[in-house]
Amino acid sequence: MVSTHILSAYDEDLKFLTRRIAEMGGLAEQMVSDSVRALVHGDAALAQKVISDDVVLDHAEREVGDKAIVTIARRQPMAADLREIMGSIRIAADLERVGDLGKNTAKRVIAVQGHGVPRRLARGIEHLSELALSQLKEVLDVYTTRSPDKAVSIRERDEEIDAMYTSLFREMLTYMMEDPRNITTCTHLLFCAKNIERIGDHATNIAETIYYMATGSQPEGERPKDDTANTVGAVTE
Amino acid sequence: MVSTHILSAYDEDLKFLTRRIAEMGGLAEQMVSDSVRALVHGDAALAQKVISDDVVLDHAEREVGDKAIVTIARRQPMAADLREIMGSIRIAADLERVGDLGKNTAKRVIAVQGHGVPRRLARGIEHLSELALSQLKEVLDVYTTRSPDKAVSIRERDEEIDAMYTSLFREMLTYMMEDPRNITTCTHLLFCAKNIERIGDHATNIAETIYYMATGSQPEGERPKDDTANTVGAVTE
Repeated sequence: MVSTHILSAYDEDLKFLTRRIAEMGGLAEQMVSDSVRALVHGDAALAQKVISDDVVLDHAEREVGDKAIVTIARRQPMAADLREIMGSIRIAADLERVGDLGKNTAKRVIAVQGHGVPRRLARGIEHLSELALSQLKEVLDVYTTRSPDKAVSIRERDEEIDAMYTSLFREMLTYMMEDPRNITTCTHLLFCAKNIERIGDHATNIAETIYYMATGSQPEGERPKDDTANTVGAVTE
Repeated sequence: MVSTHILSAYDEDLKFLTRRIAEMGGLAEQMVSDSVRALVHGDAALAQKVISDDVVLDHAEREVGDKAIVTIARRQPMAADLREIMGSIRIAADLERVGDLGKNTAKRVIAVQGHGVPRRLARGIEHLSELALSQLKEVLDVYTTRSPDKAVSIRERDEEIDAMYTSLFREMLTYMMEDPRNITTCTHLLFCAKNIERIGDHATNIAETIYYMATGSQPEGERPKDDTANTVGAVTE
């Protein structure tokens, strides 16, 4: 009787972690998508909302961390269960960083305002963010199924994002060289593009964590990297 | 007898964590200082060394995390001891990020090579990195003493770094506007300066973690922020 009770309380702990991480994932996605919308449309109010949302995400990460540690100390889980809880801590940290990147993009909305974002660059940033967000969304779906095969395939998709970031980086340099009046705005857009590229890296981290949770080992081989990035000087993470 | 044995093994676990974190701190400092030296002197070999060092730091973080979790599961520590171990995980994560920022700066050495870094900007970056490194060094010293008062005072110094970053950011924009041939190099230098500014943020995170380890609560009030940063558009984290 007692042991059933303990087991069920333990299951509740794990469910709490899974639910909170799913919520964090949803909020992080929303923040990134809102920040890009705010940037492209110069929407300062929406940018402000993203900045406020970050507090909620920070709080959720702290909560996941605290719950995870208390669960480990109380239940002394072994093997797969321990990996499950350790994985929660790591994924929460990655999602919190994704939110920070959204917040940083949102902060640049005010700096860019008044100058307007060139339409071609706006489209490039939107496209990059769609790719990063679809990777993030997919990895969050894999989190619910815990399929190690799918986790590996997502990890390989980061190359696409790096390649698109590199081409956008090059285009922004051209805009700056063409007209010095573009420099301030393009500088901020470069940082925004970099923020979005790094979201792809966090999605990749999460994919690796899911693989580790499911199998107990790291996925084999190096992370796929687009090597053209460094030759044009875009420098992906 | 058994309980003494357990206690001493537990102490060994804590000592292991403290020692590893001190080592990680030393390596992270070295990587940042090497990366800036490589950038300023166009030293590709030194940049390559920083990139290789990052693997060591990543490995150390993983080791701290694994050891911390195993210690929590085995010893079921409460209150101050639990905070001690949780704090180790967080500090190791911050130091790993500092190493990543050093690595990212090192990667830009190759992109900037051949163009040369304007002397005034080189001096600005060196100066910014000295400030960030002295903050990091100080916070690592406070880690050994665990003084909450000192931790709070370090947290307040991040403002200086933000202010210097803002003025450097402004200066780089001026260089780009003066001569389009400076744009590619200055773009990379902007990212390098941003990397260094973020090291200050991680030092601040570590100071807050030390405060939490010592007191069980977060330091009061908002983080000090230099508000001029956003008006000129430098956007600190």
